[in-house]
Amino acid sequence: MILRSSTHPRWFAASAADLQALLSDHLHCERKAAENSLALVWRYPHRGTSVAQLSRLAHEETSHVVQVAALLARHGWTPRADTPNRYARALLAEVRGREPERLLDALLVAAFIEARSHERLMLLARGFGERGDDELARFYGALGDAEERHAETFLELARPLVPEAGFDERLAFFGAREAEILAALPHASRIH
Amino acid sequence: MILRSSTHPRWFAASAADLQALLSDHLHCERKAAENSLALVWRYPHRGTSVAQLSRLAHEETSHVVQVAALLARHGWTPRADTPNRYARALLAEVRGREPERLLDALLVAAFIEARSHERLMLLARGFGERGDDELARFYGALGDAEERHAETFLELARPLVPEAGFDERLAFFGAREAEILAALPHASRIH
Repeated sequence: MILRSSTHPRWFAASAADLQALLSDHLHCERKAAENSLALVWRYPHRGTSVAQLSRLAHEETSHVVQVAALLARHGWTPRADTPNRYARALLAEVRGREPERLLDALLVAAFIEARSHERLMLLARGFGERGDDELARFYGALGDAEERHAETFLELARPLVPEAGFDERLAFFGAREAEILAALPHASRIH
Repeated sequence: MILRSSTHPRWFAASAADLQALLSDHLHCERKAAENSLALVWRYPHRGTSVAQLSRLAHEETSHVVQVAALLARHGWTPRADTPNRYARALLAEVRGREPERLLDALLVAAFIEARSHERLMLLARGFGERGDDELARFYGALGDAEERHAETFLELARPLVPEAGFDERLAFFGAREAEILAALPHASRIH
């Protein structure tokens, strides 16, 4: 587990307060995750192994978009518009400009977003389960499991890019920075 | 079938001349098709039915990215970088700026790109089949079938947006324009 902090116990109540907003944000998170994997295929096509793994990730992320869209539809809700994701933007602001640092950082940012999403989807699964909402508990549990695997994939892709000490140092940097960014954000009906 | 022209008989030989280039272009076409569907989810989230259908399209397109990436890998090739797609750009230049014309045009352009991709993947399936390359024939045949369904989906999403006469007029416009754009392009080892 790469996260250096745990989500505050009061986060669940805030996030679950407006389910349509939470699901809408989740839809856009999964959409952006798919777009991010596809953008990496565009930017680094010559990295053959990455192309195969990133394509599979994008395929799985689009399956989550389908599932979240279907759940919104079952509630009779249309998704709300996407709103700026201050969490992801603050992390992406740390990505350096030169290669291979740029790709390393982009993959580490993706790994942390996936790891945090895993933590939060699991909190949603547990919280809705405790409220007796088994459908939502199963839904978030299944999607949350996938995020953990995705985080591992991004770390696997990132690790060989630089010497081990450089990798460990950057992982520690993003671990501290991610916790700091998260701590500064208000709790709301959204994943991050 | 919405296409107003047929691909020139000499196109197959030109496109098959460099299989790595053709597969690389195909990979990027499928990637961009997925990105385009996801961008429509971002731009029109409140259109609930479209979100569900466009998410499923994106999921299928990413499956094609996975398949093309796997075929490149089996040949021991890494994908080449994406190159500007003059065909798609010329079509997108015809999209009008105001709604609902903007969405109508975007969906019609997507329908024509899918329809033309269907025609060309089927020509590749037949051409490689005639050369006795059954693996490539099956590969292009399967992916080509999907493009035909995608074209239908985009037309279904576009049709209710404006009165029928307006829809028919715009379909005729794009039919003529697409054929004109295609006729002006050189044959090369790419899908369009």
